[in-house]
Amino acid sequence: MTSTADIIRDIGEGSIRAIARALSRVENGSPDSADILDVLFGKQQGFTLGITGPPGAGKSTLVNRMITRYRTTDNSVGVIAVDPSSPFTGGALLGDRIRMQSHASDPKVFIRSMGSRGHLGGLSGATRDASCVLSAAGYSPVIIETVGVGQAEVEIADLAHITLLVLVPGLGDDVQSMKAGIMEIGDIIVLNKADRNGIDQLESYVKASLEFMPADLKKPEVIRISAVSGEGLEDLWGAIDRLVAAQTGEEKTARSAVKTLNGILTENGIIISEKLLEIEYNGRKAAEELILAGQLSPYAIGKKLLERAEGMFKHNGSK
Amino acid sequence: MTSTADIIRDIGEGSIRAIARALSRVENGSPDSADILDVLFGKQQGFTLGITGPPGAGKSTLVNRMITRYRTTDNSVGVIAVDPSSPFTGGALLGDRIRMQSHASDPKVFIRSMGSRGHLGGLSGATRDASCVLSAAGYSPVIIETVGVGQAEVEIADLAHITLLVLVPGLGDDVQSMKAGIMEIGDIIVLNKADRNGIDQLESYVKASLEFMPADLKKPEVIRISAVSGEGLEDLWGAIDRLVAAQTGEEKTARSAVKTLNGILTENGIIISEKLLEIEYNGRKAAEELILAGQLSPYAIGKKLLERAEGMFKHNGSK
Repeated sequence: MTSTADIIRDIGEGSIRAIARALSRVENGSPDSADILDVLFGKQQGFTLGITGPPGAGKSTLVNRMITRYRTTDNSVGVIAVDPSSPFTGGALLGDRIRMQSHASDPKVFIRSMGSRGHLGGLSGATRDASCVLSAAGYSPVIIETVGVGQAEVEIADLAHITLLVLVPGLGDDVQSMKAGIMEIGDIIVLNKADRNGIDQLESYVKASLEFMPADLKKPEVIRISAVSGEGLEDLWGAIDRLVAAQTGEEKTARSAVKTLNGILTENGIIISEKLLEIEYNGRKAAEELILAGQLSPYAIGKKLLERAEGMFKHNGSK
Repeated sequence: MTSTADIIRDIGEGSIRAIARALSRVENGSPDSADILDVLFGKQQGFTLGITGPPGAGKSTLVNRMITRYRTTDNSVGVIAVDPSSPFTGGALLGDRIRMQSHASDPKVFIRSMGSRGHLGGLSGATRDASCVLSAAGYSPVIIETVGVGQAEVEIADLAHITLLVLVPGLGDDVQSMKAGIMEIGDIIVLNKADRNGIDQLESYVKASLEFMPADLKKPEVIRISAVSGEGLEDLWGAIDRLVAAQTGEEKTARSAVKTLNGILTENGIIISEKLLEIEYNGRKAAEELILAGQLSPYAIGKKLLERAEGMFKHNGSK
């Protein structure tokens, strides 16, 4: 197996193979993944751009346009396509390759499909670590595309420096249910398929909803585009550039650090809980049997484990 | 404050107020929530029905139909509407009340909107606990409706005894990206808006995709309906009834116990990680400052905390 130090050196030299290798190791939670990420964390540069929205909003077409745009300025572009593949198969999807095939032969475009399989932190943990690798390898922007409007998408969007929420006319009643909050995910709300019926109505609706945002939050810009025809894209690029320019390096680093720490703490917690279960109940299997026999509820077990951990902390609280 | 014992007694007597009170306490992670849930866990009865699908698929209309159906057999019906509200406002949505208002005055229908605010386990933890409360209070089915096709929706769907994935024609390319796995979420795949153009194509597509499912997984039934006109609903009810009848009580209990335990372990882990951060780095704030000063990466901190925990376990491993 290639050593950790070799991988890190080769990434520094721009080796695509080393990048792919590092991505596989962090996705699978290999033993040296924390060491790889520890070194790469401080080497991150450039910015990350999150793109989220419901199915059918035209996100992939927009990402294609975006790759073309950044390639004209000779940036290397990374794309992490977060796919809603199920936990049961965890199969990697070919969708990204099919949808972005016009860039598949460009060596300065690196496209990676993410599934949740193998990573303790689920999709958002896997995306965070992959983004760290690509950003440290010099890709900028790293575009994170995720399908959906749920909790996981909020977490993933929250990871990026700048986030676009893409909406289209014709989503039905559910757009209304987004009112109370989901729109606040986006730094920019992109209304795609501007040539479609219902676009005026959607824009009025979105703008009216933004009126309900808490006064202390910055209202997102709303920009109409047609990713297919190219209409409005110059406006969108301008808005993104202004946001990139407005964020200081320190601000970006601080946000990224806090989010990364939170994610890692959660993942650690899962490992620690499993060990406590081992100590207190001889492991998960035995604990499950107690529950099924009706002797203990999962809630009682949880409470007991927490008490046990607190006891240990009392005895070991001093350094 | 009403005592834990009083709340549990009053829930047993069917008090709506006690149910609402218990729901608030578990959602907000109040100190007695583990005790409330510990008692209610074993009192759960009936079944839970998850309904998921992309925005615009007509899930709310279907839930309305479903409530009507179960009310004709005099069941009490619980509905948990999981809303994609953002973590920034956490505002409760009125959407459920608007969309299901035809049942709002029925005392045997309990509708609760869920946001992630306050619950350590996020939306899936909050939904799990609310479902435990409603199921112990005698609601059956407890219908869990969630918008989306992402990771969070998979987790929530996985919580229910029986899950419906609702799709409609016209979702665009993203339906293709669901191919590798998302369809396996559903015990039944409901093709809604059967009168719309593209329904034949969608059905062919879905059925072709199911051919790629691993042979050891049970293929979901595919049923066409129109939630608006009522077409196909009898078929759907029949399919649900067959699935309910096929699940043994033990099987349901076992699945629910394992999932509940997993969720609680994760939530415990977050609490424990915070405490370790306190012991090792004098808390989160100080740790963040070390990161921002470039002295340590979040990954290095995570590794150190894990080592610290392992040290404690070694010293305290015996009971």
